[in-house]
Amino acid sequence: MITIALPKGALLSDSIALFKQIGLDFTAFLDSSNRQLQISDPTNTAKALLVRAQDVPVYVEYGQAQLGIVGYDVLLEKTPKVANLADLKFGACRMSVAVPAKSPYRSSIELPPNGRVASKFVHCAEDYFRRLDIPVEIIPLYGSVELGPITGMSDAIVDLVSTGRTLRENGLVEIDVLFESTARLIAHPLSYRLNLDHLDQWVNKLRQINLKPVA
Amino acid sequence: MITIALPKGALLSDSIALFKQIGLDFTAFLDSSNRQLQISDPTNTAKALLVRAQDVPVYVEYGQAQLGIVGYDVLLEKTPKVANLADLKFGACRMSVAVPAKSPYRSSIELPPNGRVASKFVHCAEDYFRRLDIPVEIIPLYGSVELGPITGMSDAIVDLVSTGRTLRENGLVEIDVLFESTARLIAHPLSYRLNLDHLDQWVNKLRQINLKPVA
Repeated sequence: MITIALPKGALLSDSIALFKQIGLDFTAFLDSSNRQLQISDPTNTAKALLVRAQDVPVYVEYGQAQLGIVGYDVLLEKTPKVANLADLKFGACRMSVAVPAKSPYRSSIELPPNGRVASKFVHCAEDYFRRLDIPVEIIPLYGSVELGPITGMSDAIVDLVSTGRTLRENGLVEIDVLFESTARLIAHPLSYRLNLDHLDQWVNKLRQINLKPVA
Repeated sequence: MITIALPKGALLSDSIALFKQIGLDFTAFLDSSNRQLQISDPTNTAKALLVRAQDVPVYVEYGQAQLGIVGYDVLLEKTPKVANLADLKFGACRMSVAVPAKSPYRSSIELPPNGRVASKFVHCAEDYFRRLDIPVEIIPLYGSVELGPITGMSDAIVDLVSTGRTLRENGLVEIDVLFESTARLIAHPLSYRLNLDHLDQWVNKLRQINLKPVA
């Protein structure tokens, strides 16, 4: 029996819809009264773990789950040792640099030398500014990154943007995009190579669905 | 005007009650419809920021807040450059090692060499096992650490325990305590040393309240 790691949050409902199309029903995770973190589908064909998005690649890397769904942003930030099998196309967002609308900066290279950038994605942000050869100080935050510029703690932020509503509500504007992100299907490399539990059948089914045009 | 960083979550209501006793009213943060992350008290004497517990020391270290309230566990994990001014006595919990009740281990030193320990508190866990001279692999997780042993990914966890309910519900038992934790009053070192905005008056008021016996 295969185990699939599913991410809490924004990608969960689309992930569950995807597996439903290949006959695996994990809709119990969408029930607001659900407290279980581990369930089997009703046909007892597969198990699913409900974990934080950042923890999905951990369970897959250690082989506790053979498959997982996670945003490309998490893969770039954590660089886990997992096989990145397919772009699932949903959960589109982008990793962006944003600054206060009233600031003079309109692109990353205009940021002041040794400026401060608040981010939950410390490695992505460090890597981006290193490539640009701009020396900045990254301030690691866990939540509400938009408070960085509002309080004056940082000149800019690097954060995931989907609708842009949070930025607008906080008087911030995007000035550069690091990369676009979507949900990815990942696998435990050894299980995938050895094709344990006929993993390839599940992966092929998921890939076929994914090639269909979106309704 | 001073700014105070308050932690979302378990310590928030006690933190707000504490400041209310010295005349600063931030109860607006307890309103479930509140979306603001930055408010002034009604007398315009002080501002408060509502941030993740782990971010409180960041705002205080960078001087965006002169005072903050945060759990001792966060101070030990992040070792921020802040002044630790007072033990506020509330929010008591402990950082513990826990294992499945059905496992043979009943103390940390019985854990298997190169065993795996899942934790959100990677530095605390590493430091603890290094002092015991037990080589373990720490698996960093962001949430639901109890899934580590349940799925078989780890032999043990290091996590904060208050009532112990989560451990019991997941068939885990505490086998060792790393340290006890309570809420701490922290300050921006330079602001405190220079006594900016008469910071000492606020700190003394908080300390006096804190010395009163708990009702």
